[in-house]
Amino acid sequence: MIKTIDKKDYMPEPAKDTRKLAIISVGEDKASKVYLNNKAKICNELGIGAVIYNLPKWSTERTIIDLIQGLNERTSIKGIIVQLPLPKHLDPINIVNFIDPNKDVDGLTFTSIGKLEQGLDCHVPATARGIMEFFEHEGIELEGKKVLIIGRSQLVGRPLQKLLLRENAVPTTSHSYDKDLLESIKNYDVVVSGIGKPNYIQEEHVKENQILVDVGISKVEGKIYGDITDKAKEKAKLGTAVPKGVGVLTTVCLAKNVLESKL
Amino acid sequence: MIKTIDKKDYMPEPAKDTRKLAIISVGEDKASKVYLNNKAKICNELGIGAVIYNLPKWSTERTIIDLIQGLNERTSIKGIIVQLPLPKHLDPINIVNFIDPNKDVDGLTFTSIGKLEQGLDCHVPATARGIMEFFEHEGIELEGKKVLIIGRSQLVGRPLQKLLLRENAVPTTSHSYDKDLLESIKNYDVVVSGIGKPNYIQEEHVKENQILVDVGISKVEGKIYGDITDKAKEKAKLGTAVPKGVGVLTTVCLAKNVLESKL
Repeated sequence: MIKTIDKKDYMPEPAKDTRKLAIISVGEDKASKVYLNNKAKICNELGIGAVIYNLPKWSTERTIIDLIQGLNERTSIKGIIVQLPLPKHLDPINIVNFIDPNKDVDGLTFTSIGKLEQGLDCHVPATARGIMEFFEHEGIELEGKKVLIIGRSQLVGRPLQKLLLRENAVPTTSHSYDKDLLESIKNYDVVVSGIGKPNYIQEEHVKENQILVDVGISKVEGKIYGDITDKAKEKAKLGTAVPKGVGVLTTVCLAKNVLESKL
Repeated sequence: MIKTIDKKDYMPEPAKDTRKLAIISVGEDKASKVYLNNKAKICNELGIGAVIYNLPKWSTERTIIDLIQGLNERTSIKGIIVQLPLPKHLDPINIVNFIDPNKDVDGLTFTSIGKLEQGLDCHVPATARGIMEFFEHEGIELEGKKVLIIGRSQLVGRPLQKLLLRENAVPTTSHSYDKDLLESIKNYDVVVSGIGKPNYIQEEHVKENQILVDVGISKVEGKIYGDITDKAKEKAKLGTAVPKGVGVLTTVCLAKNVLESKL
């Protein structure tokens, strides 16, 4: 069964104060501009002020870090994100780690990673959070379930592995070096795929009682495809649509992170 | 085949300077005293000065943090470890995070966890490091291999998952909520078990071409057992002994962390 996701089911209460999200963007990246506009839009809907800092592409690390440190001090700013990728002369890990972990609403600082791993309260990368909220909304029990995560990014695969362990699921992290990846899919109760290979997982690879979460998104000749074919999703118990699937939860969960930010 | 491990094959060159390891121990825990003595012994063998701080069991968090901050400043101290478990009134995660990440030779600070995850140079928890050194020493190729990790501790299971991903292995993290854990073991190329259930994995659960790494250690009526029976290890391609298995590498790798410490 193909499942489309309605953002409305996941929307939080709007902000009750004048909290703001600072978005730092360096240079002009077309794809990241689309994401940036989506983030600004959801902030607007939820009463969060989005403050966008567009820095020239030749900005130095020092300039960006100074900006971050200023934003760390400002009490109305409850979240700070740096649009990735950055121009090549900049070290994204070094820069991101200057963000106050309390304002690190992308969950990318060492402190956020360490806290998530140790089960402490922290900001969780929005897409991983969105997937967990989807499981909860659909009443999908995870305890003891074998979950295959395809992809090991810092924004999805890695935080998701930790969140699944919190729910006592049994997570496997796979990737392109796994030679019988497709053949092994039937061994799992839940599959979360986010590698961006259009129609990679097909009907023959899945079975009837599986839950398939498709986080892949690829554009081929103007058309958008997920990692998993519609036929595979129809065969499975439940497969999330692309587009209009869990992707719509990313900006919602980013906004939730900003709304819950305490400092 | 049961494989015993000879510490000598893994010993590094002794220290060429007067570097020291500071060990902070609070109260008196019998088991941790044994480990503490083992650590002091290997330091002695490798020319590392072991400085043991025995604090009374009613010490406050402030006292311990002050001590850590003083040790952070001292240049001859290249590593700082806090013996766990701590008395119940103390928060180990808060305390450990005051250690300078450059001296965090147990690899337990948020910074070490975040760096390990992002593939950066950092101190790695000694047992997890020891297991990886064992694979390397035995010429066990990990790329694309399915590895079952049983146990999700901060000292073994979790760092090992990240180290295996660095080698492009496909890791699964399992635990007591996995209902068909024993039946699933045959699906993996490599099994690393560290849950401390004596003789949990038996001959019938394993197959001939597997690598079994036994990190479990339990004492029953004065005798020491691993998680995996000797018969299972004999059936498999290779199974590490308990005692005299990978456990002997923990103190060696702790010492290596101190020897490599740069600050």
